[in-house]
Amino acid sequence: MLLDTIDGFIIDLDGTVYRGATAIEGARETLSYIRSRGKKVVFLTNRGNYSRRMCREKLNAMGIQAAEDEIILTSTVTADYLRNAAPASKCWLLGDEGLREELSAHGIGLATTPEEAEWLVITLHEKLTYAELNSAFRAVRNGARIIATNEDKTFPGDDGESIDVGGLISAIVSTTGQEVSVVIGKPSAYMSNAALRSLDLPPERCLVIGDSLNSDIRLGKQAGIRSALVLSGSTTRAIGEASEIKPDYIWESIADLQHF
Amino acid sequence: MLLDTIDGFIIDLDGTVYRGATAIEGARETLSYIRSRGKKVVFLTNRGNYSRRMCREKLNAMGIQAAEDEIILTSTVTADYLRNAAPASKCWLLGDEGLREELSAHGIGLATTPEEAEWLVITLHEKLTYAELNSAFRAVRNGARIIATNEDKTFPGDDGESIDVGGLISAIVSTTGQEVSVVIGKPSAYMSNAALRSLDLPPERCLVIGDSLNSDIRLGKQAGIRSALVLSGSTTRAIGEASEIKPDYIWESIADLQHF
Repeated sequence: MLLDTIDGFIIDLDGTVYRGATAIEGARETLSYIRSRGKKVVFLTNRGNYSRRMCREKLNAMGIQAAEDEIILTSTVTADYLRNAAPASKCWLLGDEGLREELSAHGIGLATTPEEAEWLVITLHEKLTYAELNSAFRAVRNGARIIATNEDKTFPGDDGESIDVGGLISAIVSTTGQEVSVVIGKPSAYMSNAALRSLDLPPERCLVIGDSLNSDIRLGKQAGIRSALVLSGSTTRAIGEASEIKPDYIWESIADLQHF
Repeated sequence: MLLDTIDGFIIDLDGTVYRGATAIEGARETLSYIRSRGKKVVFLTNRGNYSRRMCREKLNAMGIQAAEDEIILTSTVTADYLRNAAPASKCWLLGDEGLREELSAHGIGLATTPEEAEWLVITLHEKLTYAELNSAFRAVRNGARIIATNEDKTFPGDDGESIDVGGLISAIVSTTGQEVSVVIGKPSAYMSNAALRSLDLPPERCLVIGDSLNSDIRLGKQAGIRSALVLSGSTTRAIGEASEIKPDYIWESIADLQHF
């Protein structure tokens, strides 16, 4: 039985546990079930525009149990990266409020002007203004290096496919001539290492569940973790079956886990 | 005497006639002088984010005489292009209010939703929001072609060098995979032809005056019009003298014209 071979689950959120503000059918029950079997869970998402607190509240509001230390966002891992690789650096942020909350919670120093920043941290910013884009441009023009929580081009917004961080990155890179120094998001080892460290388990005792071949399934392949592609998000069965990135399982949704 | 060989002047605005809201010293007197000598004048700018009405009012407020039909903006020439090359097309706009005013004045049809647009017109947008960027993205994702008033990466803003249209173009191009179909701005033949048509003079009887080697002087070279580089804007003497694009004259400012 599959479940007997797994001690920890690494579970994507958008398109896997919920879509927009709505839980995917059966997700809540499935998560309760695996917890009742004594399994560990970590939620791993490429979202960098909110904090773990905001994410926990969203899950709890759907009736899904989650502690903050079971949630790993790209904002979380970006903060870890900066604390280790660039301690005492001053950062300028281009992103929604949750990014600031998450970096502050990790003690990352923030610059008071773009000109004094050593790093520009970019994530999705759904309240972007020209003035903010221009400040980010000036930070990089004055020597700040670029770290991006992820580089997705689009994401499924509440009212349709929407422009993601990739667009903001291109705006800054193309006008400053400065390339991105670090991209944190899945499928990177930054993210798989953070998940495995949090679970405190070897990769062969874990399973990645997610809706993105390129983020979730590829992360599993690169880290030696088995993976299940769910069709409740951005990937169709035809694309999943034709892909060169082969998931170990293809499920209609996370609820199929209960059949294994 | 130089002035005897010239019947018409093609004059850049930002960095040549004014910087921000302030006229460059001697610009007003010089323009009065050449008009008193019976010469024709056209102002030719890569700005696409305001209308000819707004531009005339700005010049008049500085005491500089200018009629609307002596002002050619990239928004003006974009409107001409669309009227000729794509009549009855519906456009979606990403840009400051002046772009809408200028296109409407030329009878260009505007789409009511991004999805129905056949063209996305991009210009500088200093009041950009994420929602507007996302609407532009959706227009192109749904098949709209991209026309840009210009593709400058930066411009000298009131409080320092600022991110220009090039950044907005890159955000859309990188996330949709759709290249730009048309760029209207200087040094293109769209702009030199519009200026010469307005002056109704042959190129050899005209002089281009501007502060940009790549926009103004290059336009002169490509159109067979003599050119004067002014050092009152974005170009230093050292750069002007070392450039492979050779202006016929290098002047401290437009006021030097009175010495010739």
